[in-house]
Amino acid sequence: MTSPSDWVNPLRDDKDKRLPRIAGPAGMVIFGVTGDLARKKLLPAIYDLANRGLLPAGFTLVGYGRRQWDKEAFCDYVKQAVEAGARTPFRENVWMHLAQGFEFVSGDFDDKGFDALSARLKELDSSRSTGGNWAFYLSVPPDYFSDICHQIERVGMATPTDDSWRRVIIEKPFGHNQESARELNEIVNAVFPEDAVFRIDHYLGKETVQNIMALRFANQIYEPMWNAHYIDHVQITMAEDIGLGGRAGYYDGIGAARDVIQNHLIQLLALVAMEEPSSFRPSALQAEKIKVLQATTPVYPFSKTTARGQYAAGWQGSEYVKGLREEEGFDPNSTTETYAACTLEVNSRRWAGVPFYLRTGKRLGRRVTEIALVFKPAPHQPFDSNQAAALGANAVVIRVQPDEGVTLRFGSKVPGSTMEVRDVNMDFSYAQAFTEESPEAYERLILDALLDESSLFPTNEEVELSWAMLDPILEYWENNGQPESYAAGTWGPESADAMLSRTGRTWRRP
Amino acid sequence: MTSPSDWVNPLRDDKDKRLPRIAGPAGMVIFGVTGDLARKKLLPAIYDLANRGLLPAGFTLVGYGRRQWDKEAFCDYVKQAVEAGARTPFRENVWMHLAQGFEFVSGDFDDKGFDALSARLKELDSSRSTGGNWAFYLSVPPDYFSDICHQIERVGMATPTDDSWRRVIIEKPFGHNQESARELNEIVNAVFPEDAVFRIDHYLGKETVQNIMALRFANQIYEPMWNAHYIDHVQITMAEDIGLGGRAGYYDGIGAARDVIQNHLIQLLALVAMEEPSSFRPSALQAEKIKVLQATTPVYPFSKTTARGQYAAGWQGSEYVKGLREEEGFDPNSTTETYAACTLEVNSRRWAGVPFYLRTGKRLGRRVTEIALVFKPAPHQPFDSNQAAALGANAVVIRVQPDEGVTLRFGSKVPGSTMEVRDVNMDFSYAQAFTEESPEAYERLILDALLDESSLFPTNEEVELSWAMLDPILEYWENNGQPESYAAGTWGPESADAMLSRTGRTWRRP
Repeated sequence: MTSPSDWVNPLRDDKDKRLPRIAGPAGMVIFGVTGDLARKKLLPAIYDLANRGLLPAGFTLVGYGRRQWDKEAFCDYVKQAVEAGARTPFRENVWMHLAQGFEFVSGDFDDKGFDALSARLKELDSSRSTGGNWAFYLSVPPDYFSDICHQIERVGMATPTDDSWRRVIIEKPFGHNQESARELNEIVNAVFPEDAVFRIDHYLGKETVQNIMALRFANQIYEPMWNAHYIDHVQITMAEDIGLGGRAGYYDGIGAARDVIQNHLIQLLALVAMEEPSSFRPSALQAEKIKVLQATTPVYPFSKTTARGQYAAGWQGSEYVKGLREEEGFDPNSTTETYAACTLEVNSRRWAGVPFYLRTGKRLGRRVTEIALVFKPAPHQPFDSNQAAALGANAVVIRVQPDEGVTLRFGSKVPGSTMEVRDVNMDFSYAQAFTEESPEAYERLILDALLDESSLFPTNEEVELSWAMLDPILEYWENNGQPESYAAGTWGPESADAMLSRTGRTWRRP
Repeated sequence: MTSPSDWVNPLRDDKDKRLPRIAGPAGMVIFGVTGDLARKKLLPAIYDLANRGLLPAGFTLVGYGRRQWDKEAFCDYVKQAVEAGARTPFRENVWMHLAQGFEFVSGDFDDKGFDALSARLKELDSSRSTGGNWAFYLSVPPDYFSDICHQIERVGMATPTDDSWRRVIIEKPFGHNQESARELNEIVNAVFPEDAVFRIDHYLGKETVQNIMALRFANQIYEPMWNAHYIDHVQITMAEDIGLGGRAGYYDGIGAARDVIQNHLIQLLALVAMEEPSSFRPSALQAEKIKVLQATTPVYPFSKTTARGQYAAGWQGSEYVKGLREEEGFDPNSTTETYAACTLEVNSRRWAGVPFYLRTGKRLGRRVTEIALVFKPAPHQPFDSNQAAALGANAVVIRVQPDEGVTLRFGSKVPGSTMEVRDVNMDFSYAQAFTEESPEAYERLILDALLDESSLFPTNEEVELSWAMLDPILEYWENNGQPESYAAGTWGPESADAMLSRTGRTWRRP
C-alpha cells in the first residue's frame, strides 16, 4: 500500500484549499449502523470523504449493533449502502483502503457488548494508529442516549487519554420541549463535556446556509439594508411536497413545529438575525447565535399569530394523494400538525418591530426552503400610482433548496414609451456560478466533528432557547382542539393566510 | 379610409398602456432629410411609430432640401430608408396611409425656398388637418442653425397661431465649448423659446437610461446605498470597438470628449447622481439635473486626473485594423483624441469624496456602455485574509448596451468545506425579463417631442453646465502636446490606467 504522502487523489484539484482540513488520526463508532440514517447518509458520506482524500490513512469505522455480523458481512452491508448512496464514483482502490478499517462489534445498547467494544477500540488504537481518538455517533432514537452514554462511561470510553479525544455526535429530536431537552442535555453532558458534543442539524451543513454569513459579512452591499429601517418582515419557509408515508407512526405526537421549526428554521433565523461575530471561531459564532436567540420571543396572541393544519386528500401535481388520517400508523384522532406557522420577534435595536414569520409543512405546493427579507415600500414614489401599480415589495431571497442561490426582487421600467414599473427578479445561482461541487451536508458535518470544528453544531443552550420560544405555542395548540385541515398540494390552512393578511401582508408563493 | 377610432392596430396589445400617448394632429419638417441620420434613424423611426399606431391619422412629413424631388421621388427615397432601417415589419396599408402625408419642398437653407415651405405648411394645415402644429427637425450641422432659424422666423413659421404649437428639434454637437454653446443657444432661443427647443441626446431615449430613475426611486433596495457612505467611486464607460472609418474628417477637431463625454456621459452622471425629483414632470426633473450639474466640477490637476489617447494600428479580435493616423481624411498631426477619460466630483452631501470616472474611446476591446457604482470594502472582514483573497469590491452595474440590464457583483461562499469567499454576479436582463420590445431611442424621442414631453431632452442650461466642466480639461489638453497612442483592441492608453491606479483603483474590464 502506498503511504498517504505518495498517494495522489485524482479527484483533488491543485487549487483545492481543503488540504489543511484533512482529519487527523481517528475512528468512529456508529450506534444504530443498520438504521435508515446510517445507511442512506452516514456510510455514503464517509466513503465520499475517503474518496476526496479527507480522511486519515488509518481511519477506522466500527459498527455496533445486535446483528451477529462478522467483518465480511459488515463490509458487504456498507458496500451496498455506499453503492446506493455515494455521490462520488465508486473506486475499488479507495474502497479497499477504507474497508480495511471496518470492524463490527455485536451487542445491545445496555449490556456487556460495550466491554468488547472498549477492548476492540484499544486494539485498533495500536493496529490502526487511531491514537485513541474516537467519535461516537448515536444514530439512534434519543430514548437510547441515556443507556449508551452510561455504558460508554462505564467501560471508560468517554474519557480520552493523554493527547487523544473522545466526542459524541447526536441527532435530533433534541427533546420534545424545553424540559425534556434539558434532561437530554444533562444525560449527555454528564458523560461528555459540552465541547465534546456535536448535535447534528443537517440544515446547517448546507452550502447556502453557510453562505448567509458570507453574504452578510464579506460584503458591503447587504448589511446596510439588513435591519428594521428597511426590512418590513422576514419569511422563513421550509415546504415539503411529500406526505408522511411510512413515517406516520414516528411523526404522530411530534408534528411540524417540533420536527422542523424548533431546529432548522430557528437556526436559520439565528443566522439571518444575529450581529456580526468577532470571528468565525465556534465560540464567537455560538455566542452571537445565543445572544440573538435570547432576544427572540413568540408574538402573542397565538390565536392570531400562529397557524397549524393537517393535510387532507388532494391533488399534488397530477397525482391524487391520501390525507393524513388515511396514512397507515396515524391515529385518526391525533392533533399532530403537518403544517405549522408562527410569528417571532427579535427584541434588538436592529430588528425591533420586524416580524419573523416561520412556516413549514408537508404536502404543500412545492418542495422549497427559502429565507425572504421583504422590504418596506420606498418611502415615496415619484411615479403615478398607475405607473407603479404592478410593483410589489422589494425582497432579498436566499434560496436554500432546491436551485440554491440568491434572488433580488425589485421594480424595473417596463420597455415602452411610458414610465411603467413592474417587478423583476435578479438571480444568482450557485450551480451556474461555481464549478465546485457542494459537499453533502453530512460529509461536511462528519468532517467538522472529526476536526473539532463545532461552528455548525447547535449547542445545548441554543437547543434549550429554541424550545423556550416554541413551548408556549405548543401548549396553546394542545389546549385548543384539532388543527385545521388543508388540501394536499395547496399552501396550508386558511388560518395561515389570515395570520399575515391581518397585518396587510401575504406569504410568498415560492 | 377608416377613422383612427375604428382602426385596430394588430401590433398593439390590449394591455398596452401607451394608448393615451398617441400624438395629436401634427406635422414635421426635416431639414437635412437626405443626410445619414435622417435616412438611418429618423425616417425608420417615423414609420415604426406609425406602424405602432402612435402617430395621428393626418401626420405629415415634409422634407426640405436642395434636391429637385417631386413627391414621388421623395416617397421612393423614404421607402428605401424605411425598408432598410425599420424595426417593425413593412406593412403596405400602414405605408400607404403614412405616405399620403409626405411632401418635399426644394430649397437652400438661406433662401426663398422658405417662402414656398411656409405656404405649403399653410395648405397642409387645412388639407391634412395638422392644425398648425409643426416640429422642425434640424438634422444638419450646427453651422446651418443660424440660417435656418432666421429663415423660419422671417417667413413667420416660428410663431404658432392660436392653440397650435411650433417646436424645433436639434442634434448635437451643441457647440464645441461653453462659449460656442451659449452662442448657439442664443441663436436658437432668439427664435424659439426654450420650452419649444428639443435637444436630442439619443442616449436618453434608451430604456436602460430611463430605468435608472425607476431603479433608484421606485425601489427601497438601492437608494439607501446610493451615497458616499457606501460607494467608493463611480465608473461611467462608453466603449466603441469601431474606428473612425469615413467619419475621420468630421471627427478631426472634435474628439472623444466633445463627442461623447460632454453629452452622453455627463447626462448619465446627472441621472445617477441627482436627488429625487419632486415628480417626473419635465421641469421638476430638469431642475434636479441642473442642480447636480451645478455641483459637479472636474478634479485637478489634470495631469493626474485625466487621460487621452489616439488609437494606433492593432488587432481587434481577429482583424488587424489601421491606426487613426492612417485613416483617410485625418490630419496626421492632429491632436484630436479618440480616447478620453476624466475625473469629476459632485460637491454635495450625498457624493462628497466619491470620484466619478468617465471614459470613452474608439477601437477599444469591446462595444459596451455601462455605469458601475463600485462599493467601499466591508468595514470589517471577519474572514481570514486568505479566505477572502479572491474578493473584489461589490458593485451595482447598470448595463446600458448591449445586453441591457443590471448586474450586482458581490462575494459568495465557494462550495467546499472551508469558508472561502469569491466574487459572483447576479444578473437581471431586460431581454429575458420582458416580452415587450424596447422602442428605439429615436422613436421614443420623436414621439416625446410631438407630445411636448421634454423630460428626456437636455436644456440649454444643462448643455452649458456640461461644457463648463469640460472646457478647462480641453484647454489643458490643447496646451500639452499630443495624445498618447494606444493599440486598437486594448482598453486605452497607459495614462488611463495610471489615472486610477494612483488612488489604488482600477478600471473595470467590462
